[in-house]
Amino acid sequence: MTRPTLADVLAAAERIRPHAHRTPVLTCRALDDMSCARLFFKCENFQKVGAFKFRGATNAVFALSEEDARRGVLTHSSGNHGAALALAAHLRGIPAIVVVPANAPPVKRAAIAGYGARIVPCEPTLASREETAARVLAETGATLVHPYDDDRIIAGQGTAALELLADVPELDIVLAPIGGGGLVSGTAIAVAGVSPTTRVIAAEPAAADDAWRSLRAGKIIPQTDPRTVADGLRTSLAPRTFAILRELVADIVTVSEEEIIRAMRHVLERMKIVIEPSSAVPVAAVLSGRLDVAGRRVGIILSGGNVDWDRLPWPRP
Amino acid sequence: MTRPTLADVLAAAERIRPHAHRTPVLTCRALDDMSCARLFFKCENFQKVGAFKFRGATNAVFALSEEDARRGVLTHSSGNHGAALALAAHLRGIPAIVVVPANAPPVKRAAIAGYGARIVPCEPTLASREETAARVLAETGATLVHPYDDDRIIAGQGTAALELLADVPELDIVLAPIGGGGLVSGTAIAVAGVSPTTRVIAAEPAAADDAWRSLRAGKIIPQTDPRTVADGLRTSLAPRTFAILRELVADIVTVSEEEIIRAMRHVLERMKIVIEPSSAVPVAAVLSGRLDVAGRRVGIILSGGNVDWDRLPWPRP
Repeated sequence: MTRPTLADVLAAAERIRPHAHRTPVLTCRALDDMSCARLFFKCENFQKVGAFKFRGATNAVFALSEEDARRGVLTHSSGNHGAALALAAHLRGIPAIVVVPANAPPVKRAAIAGYGARIVPCEPTLASREETAARVLAETGATLVHPYDDDRIIAGQGTAALELLADVPELDIVLAPIGGGGLVSGTAIAVAGVSPTTRVIAAEPAAADDAWRSLRAGKIIPQTDPRTVADGLRTSLAPRTFAILRELVADIVTVSEEEIIRAMRHVLERMKIVIEPSSAVPVAAVLSGRLDVAGRRVGIILSGGNVDWDRLPWPRP
Repeated sequence: MTRPTLADVLAAAERIRPHAHRTPVLTCRALDDMSCARLFFKCENFQKVGAFKFRGATNAVFALSEEDARRGVLTHSSGNHGAALALAAHLRGIPAIVVVPANAPPVKRAAIAGYGARIVPCEPTLASREETAARVLAETGATLVHPYDDDRIIAGQGTAALELLADVPELDIVLAPIGGGGLVSGTAIAVAGVSPTTRVIAAEPAAADDAWRSLRAGKIIPQTDPRTVADGLRTSLAPRTFAILRELVADIVTVSEEEIIRAMRHVLERMKIVIEPSSAVPVAAVLSGRLDVAGRRVGIILSGGNVDWDRLPWPRP
């Protein structure tokens, strides 16, 4: 099994520079006071397509040979990765195909189509999805770009942490949310290479704590029936991301659904910026006190800002 | 009737500099495309207390003589101005008193109390409010700081436009929302003094269009029964702001409730920043096409970001 290195992350940073935003790092006195720490928020909610996923997708698309590129790219993620791959392919001027289950929310379908990708529908089952993807790959010769089980994706996601470390010296901790592990893996490789005394900690919903359980069990325990508002974090680890996690990540902290929602609202109310529930998970880890950060300098990767404003994750009173 | 000058706005800028944020000016490609213009958003949603009101309140509080300051300040606005006056007084270390009707939302009361002001309850009638304020003024010798019918307030609000003009050269238009007219008055004085070829245009909810009607009638027509989601814009003009409006503001554009809500959602969805409904009113003016801005460079003052997340202004589907 291959694994990206710091050199791959640095190369990804060069490759995506003409296309991706260098997102700002924000601070907030009120959240510092609440956490008794100095918090530095790397705002990937302001990244293109509204999520860090654009980094990995752009790295993967622009790393393709001319010949491979001409045949296009394919994924079966209808979330932020699907939109990110669609836009990255559009920017390179190559075809993108996204296999989307028939029951996917129309808003997600519209976002992907809006970036110019071809949508191929499938039944909402794993078998239909894989079958459909395999058929389209055979027909087109396109390159499959997995949302996280892919070295180019992991290297691309690591560029957010590179920028954070360049902007904010001497961080004690860097926190990122964990789903499939692509962001955390890239972050851990970047931090280990550039600032080895900084600890990387992953934050995970307790209601989808497969990474936490996997780390304790020493083997991958797939996520079944995740019931979390953090819809970007419902996926399971891949062997590739699990190996990096075991070696380079100091710990995983889990947080409750209530803590996630409260953290999201604190960011909306105090920072006046929009983050999606998945991004609120590491914020919840520090605001809830589940991770002791007193007196520390803590970088937090706010992974995205794509909120469904018709379906907010808290009840109306 | 007195009126602040550019010199007053410049003095206010000096006076509030140690206390207020110099807020960023953001741009957004998607909203530029939708409006066929170049839009520059002055982000007072990131100002202290989450609104431009902090500028005027801070100017008023720090302009007081030592003797007056010692007796404190009073207002009967339970919205952003009340919170802003409370924080400004706290920063100078003087008492602030806010007269709050018994039916005011607890969240507003809590915000004002959280900044250390003393809350004096009154009945939810104009008579009780004025009577209560007069009684407390007589008891304390405090200075009444009106939310907009006040030269120091108007001069302070104008400092946002000063910063916008310093950051973005050659604006064709500056747009701001109009309620009582304090922000628009200060903006117009700053723009007329610093960039006289730039037109200042006010944006108003059609459902609370007293300023639009007053301008056409040539006299103040008070707002009765305003039914707009833009709760910061339900107030009527004062003679002081009306006079400035007539002289220095090129026009008023009105927008529908649906346009306001759509504009607010576009900013949440595309810019990933939080604005309150009142701030969406000038955005709605350009996105709806009611103001022709094609090919223009347009500054928009985003007045605040205090949203009640339990009561969003659109229905759940």
